[in-house]
Amino acid sequence: MKARSYRLEDLAHLVQGESFGRSDFFLTGLASLERANPNQISFVNGDKYLEAAQNSQAGALIIPVELKDQLTQHQNLIVVHNPYLAFAQLTHVFEKKVETVGIESTAQIHPSAIISESAYIGHYVVIGENCIVGDHTVILANSTLSDFVEVGKDCFIDSNVTLSGETKIKDRVRIHANTVLGGEGFGFAPYQGKWHRIAQLGSVQIGNDVRIGSNCSVDRGALDDTILEDGVIIDNLVQIAHNVHIGANTAIAAKTGIAGSTTIGKNCIIGGACGIAGHLSIPDNVTLTGMSMVTKSIFEAGTYSSGTGLFENSQWKRTIVRFRQLADVPLTQILKRLDHMQTQIESLESTFKLRK
Amino acid sequence: MKARSYRLEDLAHLVQGESFGRSDFFLTGLASLERANPNQISFVNGDKYLEAAQNSQAGALIIPVELKDQLTQHQNLIVVHNPYLAFAQLTHVFEKKVETVGIESTAQIHPSAIISESAYIGHYVVIGENCIVGDHTVILANSTLSDFVEVGKDCFIDSNVTLSGETKIKDRVRIHANTVLGGEGFGFAPYQGKWHRIAQLGSVQIGNDVRIGSNCSVDRGALDDTILEDGVIIDNLVQIAHNVHIGANTAIAAKTGIAGSTTIGKNCIIGGACGIAGHLSIPDNVTLTGMSMVTKSIFEAGTYSSGTGLFENSQWKRTIVRFRQLADVPLTQILKRLDHMQTQIESLESTFKLRK
Amino acid sequence: MKARSYRLEDLAHLVQGESFGRSDFFLTGLASLERANPNQISFVNGDKYLEAAQNSQAGALIIPVELKDQLTQHQNLIVVHNPYLAFAQLTHVFEKKVETVGIESTAQIHPSAIISESAYIGHYVVIGENCIVGDHTVILANSTLSDFVEVGKDCFIDSNVTLSGETKIKDRVRIHANTVLGGEGFGFAPYQGKWHRIAQLGSVQIGNDVRIGSNCSVDRGALDDTILEDGVIIDNLVQIAHNVHIGANTAIAAKTGIAGSTTIGKNCIIGGACGIAGHLSIPDNVTLTGMSMVTKSIFEAGTYSSGTGLFENSQWKRTIVRFRQLADVPLTQILKRLDHMQTQIESLESTFKLRK
Repeated sequence: MKARSYRLEDLAHLVQGESFGRSDFFLTGLASLERANPNQISFVNGDKYLEAAQNSQAGALIIPVELKDQLTQHQNLIVVHNPYLAFAQLTHVFEKKVETVGIESTAQIHPSAIISESAYIGHYVVIGENCIVGDHTVILANSTLSDFVEVGKDCFIDSNVTLSGETKIKDRVRIHANTVLGGEGFGFAPYQGKWHRIAQLGSVQIGNDVRIGSNCSVDRGALDDTILEDGVIIDNLVQIAHNVHIGANTAIAAKTGIAGSTTIGKNCIIGGACGIAGHLSIPDNVTLTGMSMVTKSIFEAGTYSSGTGLFENSQWKRTIVRFRQLADVPLTQILKRLDHMQTQIESLESTFKLRK
Repeated sequence: MKARSYRLEDLAHLVQGESFGRSDFFLTGLASLERANPNQISFVNGDKYLEAAQNSQAGALIIPVELKDQLTQHQNLIVVHNPYLAFAQLTHVFEKKVETVGIESTAQIHPSAIISESAYIGHYVVIGENCIVGDHTVILANSTLSDFVEVGKDCFIDSNVTLSGETKIKDRVRIHANTVLGGEGFGFAPYQGKWHRIAQLGSVQIGNDVRIGSNCSVDRGALDDTILEDGVIIDNLVQIAHNVHIGANTAIAAKTGIAGSTTIGKNCIIGGACGIAGHLSIPDNVTLTGMSMVTKSIFEAGTYSSGTGLFENSQWKRTIVRFRQLADVPLTQILKRLDHMQTQIESLESTFKLRK
Repeated sequence: MKARSYRLEDLAHLVQGESFGRSDFFLTGLASLERANPNQISFVNGDKYLEAAQNSQAGALIIPVELKDQLTQHQNLIVVHNPYLAFAQLTHVFEKKVETVGIESTAQIHPSAIISESAYIGHYVVIGENCIVGDHTVILANSTLSDFVEVGKDCFIDSNVTLSGETKIKDRVRIHANTVLGGEGFGFAPYQGKWHRIAQLGSVQIGNDVRIGSNCSVDRGALDDTILEDGVIIDNLVQIAHNVHIGANTAIAAKTGIAGSTTIGKNCIIGGACGIAGHLSIPDNVTLTGMSMVTKSIFEAGTYSSGTGLFENSQWKRTIVRFRQLADVPLTQILKRLDHMQTQIESLESTFKLRK
C-alpha cells in the first residue's frame, strides 16, 4: 500500500480554503504539529497552538485567517474558517479504506439474502435468511448477521460484530468491532420467586449516519423497537437497553448505560460512564457530564452533573464521616437558630446598654 | 417465515386464563397497546393503562379480572390473575426460534467432543477436545468452545461467544452474543516492581436456567471455581471476576462489576452500573439501587444505595464546594455548641429579668 | 490430557525454596487449602491462614519460614520467603497450555503476512496484508487481524479478538477473548448541528509483557498513537480511548474508562470502574480507589478516592435531602458566626458579673 500524495492546492480546494506558498507542494500525510515531517500537513486550531506551530516540521499548515500573519516560519498554508473541520475532512483523504468488492469464498450467505454487487463481505461472515446488504457496504471478517437483518448503503461493519433481532440499519452507518445489535432485552416477569423470561419480539432501528463503537450492546425491544435516530454517535462499551429511543445527533461517550424504555432527545451530549435509569424522559439539548446518575426525568435543556469529584484518600474518608452525619444535622434549622440567637443576643446587648 | 396464528381460546388456555368474546378469533402476534393491529393481542398491566387499552386497535386484550367491566371498547378478552406473567408466557408462543438441528459443515468439532444429535452447531463454530454439548442446545455462528467445556441441554449460545477455562454449563442456560465465560482471572503477584502473572487453574460453573447477556465477562477461578447458581439472570456488559459466587435467582443489571472472591446471596437484585469490591459478602435478599458502590460486606437484607443523584451543573458545583468543606466542619459539634449557647442566652435573659 | 506430576523437591527448586519431609513425594496439582486433596500442594500466605492450613488435606504446603514450627500437622513443606509469589510461579507449572504449532487449514492468511513457523494460528483466524506474527505466539479461533498488524514473540491472543488500526504488539503480551485493539477513536468535529467524523490515522503500540483482559476496547490514535508501555496489566471491560498513554507497570481494574489524550504515569493502580476524563495528566505512583471520578489532572503521587460509599436506602435518601441543601448553607460562615456569638455572650456574661 503506497502512500498517496496530494498537491497543496488540491487539498485547499477540498476544504474550501485558500492556499498560500507553493501550490504544487506535494503532501503524503496528515500529522500532529509535534510529529509531522516535511512531507506532511498539520493544523493549528487556535492561537494556543501558535508556538507548537512555529516549531513544527510540517511541510504545510491549515490555519485560521487570524493566525496568517503570525506564522512567519511557515510558507505553505491553507487558510480556512474552521481548521478543526478542515482537519476532519482531510482525515478522509489520507484514510486507508477497504476497497475490495465482492463476497469472500468462505462467507456463508443464505440463498434468500440479497447482497449488493458493490458490497464487500469478508471471510467467515455468516448472513442469514432474508438479509439485505446495500451498495458499497463493507462487512469485515467473522461478523454474523442472523435472519432478517438489513444493512443499508455505504455502511461499515467491523469484525466480530453480531447483528441479530431483525435489526434494520439505514445508510452510512458505522458499527465497530465486537458490538452486538439486536441482542435479547433483559425482560423477566418475577413470579413465585423465579424469573420468567420474556422473549423479546421487537427489533432495533438504526438511522442514517449513526456510529456505534466497539463492544457495545444495543438490545432489541420487548414488543416495539429500540430506536437510534439519524446522526446518533456512540463510543465504546455503551449499553442501550430494550425500547430506548435516542434522538437525532445525540452523542454518547464510552461506558454509559441507558436502561429500558428511556427516551433521550435530540442534540444531547452524554458524558462517559453515565447511568440513566429506565422509563425516563430527557429532552433535547441536555448535556450530562461524565459519571452522571440520572434517576428521574429531566424537564429542561441544560447541563447536569453528579458525583463527589476526587479527593486525596484521607481527606475523602474524613469528608465521608461528615457526609454520613448529614442525615442527622438539620442544616437549614441551624441557620434559623443562629439568626434567632443573634437577635436574642442583640436584644440583650441593647437592653443592657439602655440600662447603663 | 410465515406468521403463525393462534385462536383466542387456545392462547387463554396456555396462560390458564378465561377467554371472552369470539373464542375462535385468530391472533397473529403480540404487540404493545399503542402499536397493536386488529390481528394482534396486547395486555393491560393494571388500571393505569386503562385509557391506552380503550384506545388500542388490538384485536384482543389480556386483562386482570378487576378491569373486565371497564373495558367497554373491547370484546375479545383473556382474563388472568397476572397479565404480565401471561404476557411473558405468550412471548414464547410468538418468538421465532432456531429450529434447525445438526452440525453445519463448516463447524470444527474435535473428534473427542460429544455433540448431541438434537443440537444445532452453527457455521464456523469451533469446539475443542473433550467438549460436551447436550440435547436441543443451539450454538450460533462464530462461537468458540475451548477444550473441556461442557454445555447442558436446551441451552442457547449466541454468536461470537467464547467459552473457555473448562467452563461447565447446566441446562436451559442462555448466553448472549460476544460474551466470554472462563477467561483468565486478573491475578498477579507484585514483586520487585513488576506484576507476576498467576495462571488461573479454576473454572466456571453455571447452574440451570442461568441467563447472561451480551458482552459480559465471567472469569475462571484462580484455584477454585467461579460459581453462578441456578436461576441467576445477568444483563449486558457485566463483569464477574474470579472466584465470585452468586446465589440462586439473583438478578444483576447491566454494567455492574463484581470483584474477585465476593459472595452474593440468593434473590438479590443488583441495579445497573454497581461496583462491588472484592472479598466481600452480601446476604440473601439484598437490593442495590443503580450505581451503588459497595466497599464493605453487608450483614442485613434490605435496600442499599450510593451516589449524589443529579444536579443542575452550576448548583452541583456550588454543592461540591461545600462538600469539600465538610471535612473541616464539625457538624455534630455545631449542634452541641448551639444548644450550649442557647442555654447561656436563656440564663442571661432570666437573670436579667430577675434584676429588673 | 493426563495430569502431570512433580516431585516436591523439584517444585521447591523451581520456587527457590527449601523442601522438608519426603522430597520424592509426587504432586499432581495446586489447590486452595480448603479444596486440596492429598496429591495436591497448597500455600499458606501468612499466619491468618494457619488454622485452615492445619485442617487442610493438602499433601504439601508452601509456607513462610516463620510458620514452619507451627504447622505440626504437615510434614511435606516448601519454605520460601514469599509464598504468594511461589504460588504464582507454580501456577505456570500446572497450567494447561496450547502446545500445538502451525496454521490450521481454515485460517485465512494474506500471502504478504509473515507468520513464524513456531506460532499457532487457530481455526477461522483471518490475518490481513503485511501482518507479522512472532515465534511461539498463539492466536486462537475466530480472531481477526486486519492489515499491517504486528504481534511479537510468545504472545497469547484468545478467541474472537479483533486487532486492527495497524496495532503493533511487542513480546509476551496476552490479549483475552473478544477484546478490540485499534478500533476507531471517537473523534468528531461538530459543525452546523452535525457530527463530522474524523477518520483516525494513528495506531496502537503495546509494549512487552502487557496483559489486557476480555471485552476491552483500546482505540487507535487520531494522528499519533495510543500507547501502553511495558508491563501494563488491564482487567476486563476497560475502555482506553484514542491517544491515551499509560506508563509501565500500571495496573487497571475492570470496568474503568480512560478518555482521550490522557496520560497516566508508571506504577499506578487504578481501581475498578474508575472514570478518568480526557486531556488529563496523572503522575507515577498514583492509586485510585474503585469508582473514582477524575476530572482534573493530579499533581502528586498518593491515593485518591471518590463517591459517597454505601447507605441503607432510607438513610441515603435523608442524607441526599441534606446534601441538596448544602449549596445554600454557608458551612464555614456558620463556624465563624458561632465563634462571634460565643464572644458576644461571654462579653455579656462578664459585664453582667462586674455589675453585680
